[in-house]
Amino acid sequence: MSGFTRQFLVHWNDCDPAGIVFHANFIRWMDEGFTDFSRSRGVDFVALQRAEPDFRGAPLVDVRCAFRAPARFGDVLTHAIDPPRPGEGRAFHLIHRFLLVDGSLAAEGEQVRIWGRTGPDGVLRAVPMPADIAAKLG
Amino acid sequence: MSGFTRQFLVHWNDCDPAGIVFHANFIRWMDEGFTDFSRSRGVDFVALQRAEPDFRGAPLVDVRCAFRAPARFGDVLTHAIDPPRPGEGRAFHLIHRFLLVDGSLAAEGEQVRIWGRTGPDGVLRAVPMPADIAAKLG
Amino acid sequence: MSGFTRQFLVHWNDCDPAGIVFHANFIRWMDEGFTDFSRSRGVDFVALQRAEPDFRGAPLVDVRCAFRAPARFGDVLTHAIDPPRPGEGRAFHLIHRFLLVDGSLAAEGEQVRIWGRTGPDGVLRAVPMPADIAAKLG
Amino acid sequence: MSGFTRQFLVHWNDCDPAGIVFHANFIRWMDEGFTDFSRSRGVDFVALQRAEPDFRGAPLVDVRCAFRAPARFGDVLTHAIDPPRPGEGRAFHLIHRFLLVDGSLAAEGEQVRIWGRTGPDGVLRAVPMPADIAAKLG
Repeated sequence: MSGFTRQFLVHWNDCDPAGIVFHANFIRWMDEGFTDFSRSRGVDFVALQRAEPDFRGAPLVDVRCAFRAPARFGDVLTHAIDPPRPGEGRAFHLIHRFLLVDGSLAAEGEQVRIWGRTGPDGVLRAVPMPADIAAKLG
Repeated sequence: MSGFTRQFLVHWNDCDPAGIVFHANFIRWMDEGFTDFSRSRGVDFVALQRAEPDFRGAPLVDVRCAFRAPARFGDVLTHAIDPPRPGEGRAFHLIHRFLLVDGSLAAEGEQVRIWGRTGPDGVLRAVPMPADIAAKLG
Repeated sequence: MSGFTRQFLVHWNDCDPAGIVFHANFIRWMDEGFTDFSRSRGVDFVALQRAEPDFRGAPLVDVRCAFRAPARFGDVLTHAIDPPRPGEGRAFHLIHRFLLVDGSLAAEGEQVRIWGRTGPDGVLRAVPMPADIAAKLG
Repeated sequence: MSGFTRQFLVHWNDCDPAGIVFHANFIRWMDEGFTDFSRSRGVDFVALQRAEPDFRGAPLVDVRCAFRAPARFGDVLTHAIDPPRPGEGRAFHLIHRFLLVDGSLAAEGEQVRIWGRTGPDGVLRAVPMPADIAAKLG
């Protein structure tokens, strides 16, 4: 299955005195984008947690981002997310790309997440992503 | 002319350990909403500043917000902004309301802004909002 | 008893493309400052909540801030907070002032908070601030 | 020369509904920490830019962070930064570690930065870090 794309406007407060997006906002946008991607496929973390109190969401264990070209106030960014692919152990990886209006790359990043559940000892553990969720996310 | 309405999702990082939106995000959303409102009426601050380098945007001089009911991760908020109304001196006021899905009020706030221009002495001054802008914003 | 003062550096990401502090950061700093003020008087919200699970902290019900002069990257701000004074009902008010190095006022704001507790019906209620806490906060 | 260490309190708004620090804040803290590190060695970016208008600071070109253990509201974090070490081309790397009170690792990250200058064509370029700056940063 293909990935997910959303578009959004860069706002004034996303930018720094150099007039460009402050880098940590791309990290935040990757997180927001994963939520939007999941919801667009019918994977609702709020409902999942309500249905199963031991579910702990999809905690981030690693993130990286490379900044290629400045994005500025008023730019409309296209945020593309590839479907998750399996990583080491039970982790899964998500590749994110942020494109400027001319199609050039502003930033590209990667998240490593786990599917989290509280074990009987109260400790967070990575568990396999349920098959129905994996099918929805592609 | 009537006001402006937008809808957006409350994201994970907007919320605090009480599970509700951290209050300063409503202040940020008021700012983002004013940008979106202006753009929806053809008032583009980036283009205005490019056309006239002494233009300094619409700086905020005062803000207030009252928090009525908690908004949570996954909630879709409706953000309604009334057209600007004149205030003291050259200031203008914007009333913001954030509604939960059931129509109840999560927060209501007010911004006081000026239309800013750098004077010959290099100092920021409030100038009257140009008539064509005022007509567009209603 | 007198109030509380702290100093901190304005960082790059606190500022916007106009080169000045983005206003919502003052709202955030008021919240952080109240935490620091409370801790400096031995009022530790983490410990209070651990000791009494129904305690819900000091939720903000209203905030306002007026912006007087720009603060910039590299400025050291002095943040002064007056002791809480009683407001309507069970609310209490906190006055905040942010001063530039030359002593001039960058921003001044006010928070209205309650002392919160979950009632038997599960609903958040304002309760009187305990006398020992009130004594510590001045 | 040795690196730099600072300590700071995790505030309420740094944390998410899971009660732990939202990950993008570690990315922001790395940036703030580099500013603090530089200032502690007499490297003041505001003064440098004032002295030389073509100087563009130390833009971030790449960042990564691994999250090892949760940090929570009220935790005091120790943030340690190693002196910059040379990377590919003219880039330099900074290793960041965030330690909990018991000395365990909450997060560790790496920034890749350049020393930036606007060329005669108006384009940002990486230039060698000046020798006096490199000596100060160790």
